Amino acid sequence: MKVVTYGELMLRLAPKGYLRFLQQPEFEATFGGGEANVAVSLANFGAQAAYVTKLPKNDIADAALRELKGLGVDVDGVARGGERMGIYFVEKGASMRPGKVVYDRAHSAIAEATAADFDWERILDGADWFHFTGITPALNKDVQPDILLGALECARRRGVKVSCDLNFRKKLWDSATAGKVMAKLMPYVDVLIANEEDAYDVFGIKAAGSDVNAGKLDGKGYEDVARQLSQKFGIKTVAITLRESISANDNNWGAMLYEDGKAYFSKRYAVRIVDRVGGGDSFGAGLIYATLSGMDAQSKLEFAVAASALKHTVEGDYNRVTLDEVKALTKGNASGRVQR
Amino acid sequence: MKVVTYGELMLRLAPKGYLRFLQQPEFEATFGGGEANVAVSLANFGAQAAYVTKLPKNDIADAALRELKGLGVDVDGVARGGERMGIYFVEKGASMRPGKVVYDRAHSAIAEATAADFDWERILDGADWFHFTGITPALNKDVQPDILLGALECARRRGVKVSCDLNFRKKLWDSATAGKVMAKLMPYVDVLIANEEDAYDVFGIKAAGSDVNAGKLDGKGYEDVARQLSQKFGIKTVAITLRESISANDNNWGAMLYEDGKAYFSKRYAVRIVDRVGGGDSFGAGLIYATLSGMDAQSKLEFAVAASALKHTVEGDYNRVTLDEVKALTKGNASGRVQR
Amino acid sequence: MKVVTYGELMLRLAPKGYLRFLQQPEFEATFGGGEANVAVSLANFGAQAAYVTKLPKNDIADAALRELKGLGVDVDGVARGGERMGIYFVEKGASMRPGKVVYDRAHSAIAEATAADFDWERILDGADWFHFTGITPALNKDVQPDILLGALECARRRGVKVSCDLNFRKKLWDSATAGKVMAKLMPYVDVLIANEEDAYDVFGIKAAGSDVNAGKLDGKGYEDVARQLSQKFGIKTVAITLRESISANDNNWGAMLYEDGKAYFSKRYAVRIVDRVGGGDSFGAGLIYATLSGMDAQSKLEFAVAASALKHTVEGDYNRVTLDEVKALTKGNASGRVQR
Amino acid sequence: MKVVTYGELMLRLAPKGYLRFLQQPEFEATFGGGEANVAVSLANFGAQAAYVTKLPKNDIADAALRELKGLGVDVDGVARGGERMGIYFVEKGASMRPGKVVYDRAHSAIAEATAADFDWERILDGADWFHFTGITPALNKDVQPDILLGALECARRRGVKVSCDLNFRKKLWDSATAGKVMAKLMPYVDVLIANEEDAYDVFGIKAAGSDVNAGKLDGKGYEDVARQLSQKFGIKTVAITLRESISANDNNWGAMLYEDGKAYFSKRYAVRIVDRVGGGDSFGAGLIYATLSGMDAQSKLEFAVAASALKHTVEGDYNRVTLDEVKALTKGNASGRVQR
Amino acid sequence: MKVVTYGELMLRLAPKGYLRFLQQPEFEATFGGGEANVAVSLANFGAQAAYVTKLPKNDIADAALRELKGLGVDVDGVARGGERMGIYFVEKGASMRPGKVVYDRAHSAIAEATAADFDWERILDGADWFHFTGITPALNKDVQPDILLGALECARRRGVKVSCDLNFRKKLWDSATAGKVMAKLMPYVDVLIANEEDAYDVFGIKAAGSDVNAGKLDGKGYEDVARQLSQKFGIKTVAITLRESISANDNNWGAMLYEDGKAYFSKRYAVRIVDRVGGGDSFGAGLIYATLSGMDAQSKLEFAVAASALKHTVEGDYNRVTLDEVKALTKGNASGRVQR
Amino acid sequence: MKVVTYGELMLRLAPKGYLRFLQQPEFEATFGGGEANVAVSLANFGAQAAYVTKLPKNDIADAALRELKGLGVDVDGVARGGERMGIYFVEKGASMRPGKVVYDRAHSAIAEATAADFDWERILDGADWFHFTGITPALNKDVQPDILLGALECARRRGVKVSCDLNFRKKLWDSATAGKVMAKLMPYVDVLIANEEDAYDVFGIKAAGSDVNAGKLDGKGYEDVARQLSQKFGIKTVAITLRESISANDNNWGAMLYEDGKAYFSKRYAVRIVDRVGGGDSFGAGLIYATLSGMDAQSKLEFAVAASALKHTVEGDYNRVTLDEVKALTKGNASGRVQR
Repeated sequence: MKVVTYGELMLRLAPKGYLRFLQQPEFEATFGGGEANVAVSLANFGAQAAYVTKLPKNDIADAALRELKGLGVDVDGVARGGERMGIYFVEKGASMRPGKVVYDRAHSAIAEATAADFDWERILDGADWFHFTGITPALNKDVQPDILLGALECARRRGVKVSCDLNFRKKLWDSATAGKVMAKLMPYVDVLIANEEDAYDVFGIKAAGSDVNAGKLDGKGYEDVARQLSQKFGIKTVAITLRESISANDNNWGAMLYEDGKAYFSKRYAVRIVDRVGGGDSFGAGLIYATLSGMDAQSKLEFAVAASALKHTVEGDYNRVTLDEVKALTKGNASGRVQR
Repeated sequence: MKVVTYGELMLRLAPKGYLRFLQQPEFEATFGGGEANVAVSLANFGAQAAYVTKLPKNDIADAALRELKGLGVDVDGVARGGERMGIYFVEKGASMRPGKVVYDRAHSAIAEATAADFDWERILDGADWFHFTGITPALNKDVQPDILLGALECARRRGVKVSCDLNFRKKLWDSATAGKVMAKLMPYVDVLIANEEDAYDVFGIKAAGSDVNAGKLDGKGYEDVARQLSQKFGIKTVAITLRESISANDNNWGAMLYEDGKAYFSKRYAVRIVDRVGGGDSFGAGLIYATLSGMDAQSKLEFAVAASALKHTVEGDYNRVTLDEVKALTKGNASGRVQR
Repeated sequence: MKVVTYGELMLRLAPKGYLRFLQQPEFEATFGGGEANVAVSLANFGAQAAYVTKLPKNDIADAALRELKGLGVDVDGVARGGERMGIYFVEKGASMRPGKVVYDRAHSAIAEATAADFDWERILDGADWFHFTGITPALNKDVQPDILLGALECARRRGVKVSCDLNFRKKLWDSATAGKVMAKLMPYVDVLIANEEDAYDVFGIKAAGSDVNAGKLDGKGYEDVARQLSQKFGIKTVAITLRESISANDNNWGAMLYEDGKAYFSKRYAVRIVDRVGGGDSFGAGLIYATLSGMDAQSKLEFAVAASALKHTVEGDYNRVTLDEVKALTKGNASGRVQR
Repeated sequence: MKVVTYGELMLRLAPKGYLRFLQQPEFEATFGGGEANVAVSLANFGAQAAYVTKLPKNDIADAALRELKGLGVDVDGVARGGERMGIYFVEKGASMRPGKVVYDRAHSAIAEATAADFDWERILDGADWFHFTGITPALNKDVQPDILLGALECARRRGVKVSCDLNFRKKLWDSATAGKVMAKLMPYVDVLIANEEDAYDVFGIKAAGSDVNAGKLDGKGYEDVARQLSQKFGIKTVAITLRESISANDNNWGAMLYEDGKAYFSKRYAVRIVDRVGGGDSFGAGLIYATLSGMDAQSKLEFAVAASALKHTVEGDYNRVTLDEVKALTKGNASGRVQR
Repeated sequence: MKVVTYGELMLRLAPKGYLRFLQQPEFEATFGGGEANVAVSLANFGAQAAYVTKLPKNDIADAALRELKGLGVDVDGVARGGERMGIYFVEKGASMRPGKVVYDRAHSAIAEATAADFDWERILDGADWFHFTGITPALNKDVQPDILLGALECARRRGVKVSCDLNFRKKLWDSATAGKVMAKLMPYVDVLIANEEDAYDVFGIKAAGSDVNAGKLDGKGYEDVARQLSQKFGIKTVAITLRESISANDNNWGAMLYEDGKAYFSKRYAVRIVDRVGGGDSFGAGLIYATLSGMDAQSKLEFAVAASALKHTVEGDYNRVTLDEVKALTKGNASGRVQR
Repeated sequence: MKVVTYGELMLRLAPKGYLRFLQQPEFEATFGGGEANVAVSLANFGAQAAYVTKLPKNDIADAALRELKGLGVDVDGVARGGERMGIYFVEKGASMRPGKVVYDRAHSAIAEATAADFDWERILDGADWFHFTGITPALNKDVQPDILLGALECARRRGVKVSCDLNFRKKLWDSATAGKVMAKLMPYVDVLIANEEDAYDVFGIKAAGSDVNAGKLDGKGYEDVARQLSQKFGIKTVAITLRESISANDNNWGAMLYEDGKAYFSKRYAVRIVDRVGGGDSFGAGLIYATLSGMDAQSKLEFAVAASALKHTVEGDYNRVTLDEVKALTKGNASGRVQR
């Protein structure tokens, strides 16, 4: 089971606890990025995970790769060069105060990469799965869509399954551009992942009966959204995560899966949040792992939701949980009792 | 819009997280005090805020002023001299364990200040508003009431509006003394602010139908309290914050405003607390800002409540939130969703 | 009022906050162990508490004793020698992710102690009460049961009351062995303490109508359990703590007491957890203190439950709360309002 | 005494103590930059200091300005806009391991600023002195030299004295370009400051008899360098700092001043380094302050060297020392005895 | 061997590492004070040490006593009451930047204590030695000298030996007052301890040939000082510590002892300083311990100097070294090689 | 260039800075052990490094492996199982206070490993070099010597070069046993490494003219030692590191190499110590790397000494320096100047 993911890896700078930016003169300094997050989750589950990006030649990027290697991710396909590594500053939300992200990712090595940086034939050699997200084309809408098309065509030639997480970022591009670009990539996608807002932001497909800001989501409406996405682009499997945000501390978390014309709904978890960044990525990773493991539709949905519910209890972008921990949760024990 | 506040600034020493005093040999060291907190909030909203106190000439007090200046507060009116700066130690409460404050503020420079330290004519020159609290006269009941009367008479002469937060502190004085002293100051007050206990503690006016320790507050009863305060002292506007304390972590937070004989009730927020110290001060600042901005009664109440609800999510005495953040919350989005 | 407790003291290594093991290269380093926890609680309440264990002669063990002495515990009876001090690594749970304990306590000084290390006649001289738990015999099932029998017989001779907390640890021994060993010790026990799982794990006595992993406990069922324990071993007083684990963050906490054939049920607290390790120990200490203070059955149950509810809000194994704080809570104020 | 400085302000990210980059997942996060450092020093000495730069509109840049304001620097002339704030990562050297700087400053707001961002007539209104360094033109050699020429011509028109610190940075440009650009700016300079390497790196003027890497500097040779600089560009005052680097921990620190054709040499300090970044800037600030205070040549040199020797004992870019502390050192007490 | 010491215990607040006051918003929070420091040293060496002071009834003072008890100091004689606990802020010096102390100790419980607080007959019961310093009378020159006279007369009656450390603090009183007060206490003193400046500051006796600020001390001159002190007050033993302050990081440390008309000089240690506060106190403790152990003059001087040299390597006021560590150093191994 | 090392990996727990054990309740938690340290150094230089040990199956050991993988070390040959992972507590020395190590390594997985845990044929497949130290047989003198003999015979069969660092640990075994055991392993060794004390401690061969505790080492004496070692055991290359310990902060560091009957002496570095643990290991790694790179005798000695001098400036056991950094130092620049 070998999965390749491709996207941007950023230095993540965060104040401690619930402090606001620079309320104290220090940052927790870790790394993350949607596709790297997926790779780490997969490696934690025991899959062979390879991560592809471009990073500058400096000590900060070296540290990023050191951590990925330690977590078991193959980074041999990472191109080195370019001016800088993307950075994002993140402040944890609390109660009714929303979390805040300040991006400093312009001109990153990956945003200025070219097709010549990635030899997809070599990278996808032996791979079973290729994963990308809507963030990557947004980094450089002139170049990245073509790099991705190169990867996707190579994947198709080699019979590599493809998943895409729509992951709309309004600070990176607008809906019109996103819709146009993503539509070109959709035909290559086997499994499409979205959150409760992406389908509308990217393709204008709205879920009836839901109000995201009020934390009220209606499953039926999302079933329609998934069906439309599936039909419009001919995608076999569409999964939508459903986050009801009660506050920055408390969310209800679940998902629906639409596959072969049928909708499945997961158990819904009441989550007390430690760190919600990377929640969607951990869902994607769970879904890929479960699919490659041959689980049935309901089981793979439950596995992906349990994995990503657990992510919300882990600091940092990466989902530092084991296969056993996810399985234990899917078996129904969510009481959080100490094991000793 | 220029507001002057006057009171004590203290060094605040707090254990990290939920640790009890000196469970680890370190303190978070910040600064705060009711009236300084109000000044900082106002500066954050973009108002011109000046803060007046007396501080000793030493490096600790210098640091306190450095922070205020950085936050945009004018400290030109601060007198320097005296023996020491007040200190308070604060331990965060958790669940059914209440927060704990140990005061070490006796003999502070401001407690031993004299009328000669403050030239109110110069200080209030150009000011639109003057704010003080019931803590200041409690610091030195022989001298401070007279200093305050000097300020209040000067304010009246100059047409400067006056607000007062009753802020009863039972560790500083008793109800009988407080009642007598505060009654002398009330005739100068345009806007009176109190919490759910102050009116009773200072003036013996009790809200029927409420039980503070049980976290049950009855709005109607507080409307009566406000009316009595208004009528007794001829105060046009009386605002009362209403905290339902479910536990040290969870409070319901709202307020009522009594103005021109009419009562208004705010939206009530369920607050997961990061730091509740300064909650009342941030309400006062919100009310002053909203009033000077010309909002109507309901709007200014909602602004003040939203501002102070947000304060509960911010570490330290100061309410480090922006005007935009308060406005966004008053528009109804309390879901705490990350913006990116 | 002098109480002697006997058991293992461990170095406790824990990541900061909700971090997983070694997500950052540091550990909070404190000390704890069931019986030491009981001794600290008692000393905090003002009782004379003596703690007995065996520790190696090294700087780490010295630090452990330094802290106990500082907390007012008499450690004159601690034997020194042996190879090592037990260590346990503990990771805080969050939401549906359970807390995790990794034991590194094999070959500790106490696990390899012999009867010659403890002169019970001298240790129990002047004592009113002796407390042990089911952890100690599990440390070395060949030697510790005999050491304990020595202590228990000495206690009986001297008219010292005896309490035992069943405290089953499945990582230390299995139910069959535990049942056999503990049955031999029960005849000496005046007060037996157990949690909602212990009676089943050790003696196979199950509470009808409850599902521990689902966080649903039925009081009636536990009354039966207590009665059976009382009758089977002729124990006058049996107390069972009842933890409903909603998540790793939120538990409902209460207890029942069976005494002289009658069952008492405590108030139930909704607890937001800071650190739940040592929760049961703080209940035991509360019960011992209340009993020696001559409280009636319901009062001592309420005292023990309030003391242990507060423990859940304190970091570390030790229950750093005062007698006044426990009493204030038993009087009904659980609102967590700041006192100032 | 009003001094204006102009240049780049960066977020400075540094590991704690002597750790290498990301050996622990956190950074000390402060701010600094040559010209801001000069402004802070001057404000600490009691001078009126104004700092001009361009910063993006985000929370990180807001924090930077908050700190400068707190330190008493006037930041009203700071332009807001652009994509990002420059960042530099710095690792402290130890013994024979050199300190290390990783720049991430490309595409910063100031590097992409235009002449329209700065209204020099307004900025220099009332100023006595203007200070810049060789770092600024290196940030954007197409635009910054012209912006600087605009400032310099304005300064000349208004009779504002000008100082320049050569500050060659080989990671930003090469010697040939630097020499060409700086030669165009020199005719406006009244006081030129350089370190022991700059004159050679920028203008190819080498000090005979010295070996920088061996930590051996010959004063006579630098007198020649200063004379050549003075004569070549018609600069009245040339100051050269002389750092003998014994190791990353121990440096000898002194300077020479060449004024009106005469050379002065300072006392030489053996410095145990806490943080050497900003050492040269604190020298420049000391020289400007001393000159505006009307000290004679030897005195102003000694003041500047004492101020900058002290900087080496202060963490961060900014020289957090007072006028009194510098004066005490110039009077000869370098014994570091505690005052109590 | 039982020693009683009497004086003020303060909360000590210090920035981390070499940071200046409040450069980061936190303080290391420990405790210390000359006479408590002596008691802790003695307890570490295995002596019975009792410490007497007055402290307010609050959580901060409780923590101070907790630490002393943990370190083995008997605090049963500590009076409780009064308004506050003294505080001192201390900033570590570095290189030529001197350490800095800001006192906030006015109005402390001990400064406002009365004779009634201390029952010397009970306190000195069974004691072999009583130790005080010149700081205590300086705290309240109206009351403390009398309290001390009470203690000293009681000591004389009981045959308890008395040592005094002159410990002049110019921030607490002036030389004239100090001289007058201390002269009254000297007749009771058996062992007088002073540093290289005290004899001059208190009694105007200057050591010829030395220049303290230049870090040059002449042993011969101090022999004269000791002789004069001995003769003037009839004191058998006078010890003077000799600190040559090369910088805030590097000191040479030694001492001389004058006993029965003969002078002894110790080995001189080149000390790289970790924390020099409490250096003199650890010397005093070493001298008391060595004297009570019956060492000869040269040996007790060497023991005291080795103990206090080691103190300079320990963070905080207290000298956390063992008897074995001091003895190993007196045997000549100062190479600092790791033992493993 | 593939090197295999074999030995124990421990969790390393150290107080921050110069604090003594548990002066604050936390530990820096990293990993290290002589042979792992060598592997990490080699991987940093770009060599293929494989590390072999046995570790229990738990989260702590997982973290240790994660870090090694991140640093590029192949850990595929690590056996999993056993009871526990060795731990060592280390306290940094300062000035004349020596560093202190408390071992808690008894009963570790590797100490209780058996020959069956390691398949040397597979492990050494493709290897050029095998490295072990005298610590490993000391862990279990009944079993480890035989495991090592198995490895050494396999190495001989395969033509793999062998290096051994004598690394005597008096806390693990005595000289007599060490001498006997190591003598059996010496015949397989191609390169023998020792420090200034090992040859005497293990084989009783003393260097004339040196006094280790006084920090005085005589090169000539060590040449004799090396010659005797070489002749006695027929070892071609013997290297001895020469540490002159002036204090715990300052050491002189150099080495001598005896090869083919000729002695070479390195440059000597004056080292200001950050962390000296692992200094000898980094020398060994440097020597192995330089030898495999084909350097001549003097060059490889200088490389190894420069690499290990740099180690003293790096926190933790591992030598986090690059090949470029070592080469730059060997070229003579030890001035520690910042590069920017």
